[in-house]
Amino acid sequence: MARFHSVIPAGGIGSRLWPLSRANAPKFLHDLTGSGHTLLQDTWDRLRPLAGEGRIMVVTGEAHSEAVLEQLPQLGSSNLILEPSPKDSTAAIALAAAVLMLREPDVIIGSFAADHVITSNTAFAAAVREAVAVAATDRIVTIGIEPTEPSVGFGYIKIGGELSVDRAPSARGVDRFVEKPKLDLAKQYVASGEYLWNAGMFIAPASLILEILAETEPDLHSQILTLAKAIVDGTDAGSDSVADSGAQAMAKIWPTLKKIAIDYSVAEPAAEAGRVAVVPASFGWHDVGDFAAIAELQSAGHKGGLSVLGEANVVSDSSSGILVSETNRLIALIGLEDVIVVDTEDALLITTKAHAQQVKNMVDKLKSTGHGDVL
Amino acid sequence: MARFHSVIPAGGIGSRLWPLSRANAPKFLHDLTGSGHTLLQDTWDRLRPLAGEGRIMVVTGEAHSEAVLEQLPQLGSSNLILEPSPKDSTAAIALAAAVLMLREPDVIIGSFAADHVITSNTAFAAAVREAVAVAATDRIVTIGIEPTEPSVGFGYIKIGGELSVDRAPSARGVDRFVEKPKLDLAKQYVASGEYLWNAGMFIAPASLILEILAETEPDLHSQILTLAKAIVDGTDAGSDSVADSGAQAMAKIWPTLKKIAIDYSVAEPAAEAGRVAVVPASFGWHDVGDFAAIAELQSAGHKGGLSVLGEANVVSDSSSGILVSETNRLIALIGLEDVIVVDTEDALLITTKAHAQQVKNMVDKLKSTGHGDVL
Repeated sequence: MARFHSVIPAGGIGSRLWPLSRANAPKFLHDLTGSGHTLLQDTWDRLRPLAGEGRIMVVTGEAHSEAVLEQLPQLGSSNLILEPSPKDSTAAIALAAAVLMLREPDVIIGSFAADHVITSNTAFAAAVREAVAVAATDRIVTIGIEPTEPSVGFGYIKIGGELSVDRAPSARGVDRFVEKPKLDLAKQYVASGEYLWNAGMFIAPASLILEILAETEPDLHSQILTLAKAIVDGTDAGSDSVADSGAQAMAKIWPTLKKIAIDYSVAEPAAEAGRVAVVPASFGWHDVGDFAAIAELQSAGHKGGLSVLGEANVVSDSSSGILVSETNRLIALIGLEDVIVVDTEDALLITTKAHAQQVKNMVDKLKSTGHGDVL
Repeated sequence: MARFHSVIPAGGIGSRLWPLSRANAPKFLHDLTGSGHTLLQDTWDRLRPLAGEGRIMVVTGEAHSEAVLEQLPQLGSSNLILEPSPKDSTAAIALAAAVLMLREPDVIIGSFAADHVITSNTAFAAAVREAVAVAATDRIVTIGIEPTEPSVGFGYIKIGGELSVDRAPSARGVDRFVEKPKLDLAKQYVASGEYLWNAGMFIAPASLILEILAETEPDLHSQILTLAKAIVDGTDAGSDSVADSGAQAMAKIWPTLKKIAIDYSVAEPAAEAGRVAVVPASFGWHDVGDFAAIAELQSAGHKGGLSVLGEANVVSDSSSGILVSETNRLIALIGLEDVIVVDTEDALLITTKAHAQQVKNMVDKLKSTGHGDVL
């Protein structure tokens, strides 16, 4: 574990969680479980025991710099990379990998989303430890979640042959990654016992990630390395003029980077080349994709069949569903079934659990009808 | 019509219309039809052509004095009676009758609620003219609405024998008043053609109303006359010291008045004595009892199946029902059927049309749980 360094790509707005989640206050900055901590803070707390809080890097948008530092006061500036604009996961993770590799050539990085919920930090840590042991054999390792239902909302991982790696007894090869399936196929996957949920967690030597990227996206790889050098020179030298070179390189090169998910640039090509392993894990995991998921995950504030998030002043008469409030208004609900109410200062959303996925369409509609001010 | 003077008892909060209607902003002060005028203003506009705007008296709570005068700038102070507290309809109507009778002994008054909706002012005026002609034969006259459905929300009037009154060809006797029926009975009433809806409109010589009250509630009658004398002496004299006597008498006597509906103190006893007539009318009428009624009555602002009241900034995706907004927040609705949303600065109500009547229970619940500040 001495080689291990965590990376948290903290991006993505979470449109299905509007109007709680917004461009200037994305999902990871919110407490969506009623734990008293935001998803980002929960992620930090989960990673800290692995290699210490000095070995957690956050990659986030420039606009969120202040909020992230406020939520994670222990985060040092050498572990914070600020993106001038969203460029998908390859740019974020590869730049973190390159910066960390330049500082520490044999570093093994683990990338974990800032906005997922995991119910057992102990089981998570055990899985990461196995994954690091496998990564040390020069593999890309993912942690696959044993499915509890035939979800059509997640991608799946087809389990491959057994591996023989010390201190990683449960590790297996990966046959292939598969996209979000239709329900029939999802049922087959789950029934077969040969598929795991792809939770988007990648543990690998930074050098291996960059090596594969150099093969699949040589231009992007070269740009990322240039950026990483500028950042490391700037950060480590501590001189204003050299520090500027990092900022200048970011301003100049970042806007030209290709947008591509790391699944396509690294994970899938590596799987085809037989270089990906998986550690199956059975801890509770969710990507909290919509308000229906939040209702399920709510750990506090239940009122009958009604989950309440925030300091809501609610009086309910035989209503069920989820209520999220950022105002101190009194909210009276009568006879509503599986309702979703999200009450914020400038926008109010009312829908039902069955329509939770359609919140994204509503956000698109608002964007196209000149309501960008509330997005 | 020269003897005619209208009275508008403007009381009642309309609990089923909370949080729009409140103790300090009751139903009659709101535009509930999207007409651009409040129910009180619509009532005024309907009565004005009958005998001129100098012959319309308003009886309302002291707390609403300012709002009423703002909405009805033509209302003179001699036509405004302010109640220190709510004492039900007998006190309000009998005091108006007594004040008007003292000024003009043969006055015929017509009492019309401030918070009902009537769709045809012409048909209404024609019915009132017939009613005044019948009232001149020393009868209590009501206007009965021909039912369009077997409503269980209204009382009914059983039609009696024909009358022969000049200029009142459709007038009939009244057999009796009946309370709000169960559905089966309501269906029988409507099918029989012998029942009309009781819309709470009474047209009668002021002296007759007081004569009957003297028989049924002698104490209340005597108190009302004392109050009326004090008010008329005060108003008409225009002297500060005498004007005070009206205020002093109100402060002293009003709190001791019996609370009783005029139906029980005057209308029903008069009907038993064969002294009530009815003018059947077929204009559209509604007491706008709840939000489901408002949805039906909405004349403007329809958006698909969604009725919108107020300057709502609403974006709806296949939702139906009614939205009332007093804020400028964006309201996004997705996939809701027959929903009721009432959005105010300090309180938000969400329910369904099927639960519209239960809003009153919610108000009771709020009262008993310390939420009086939003009622």
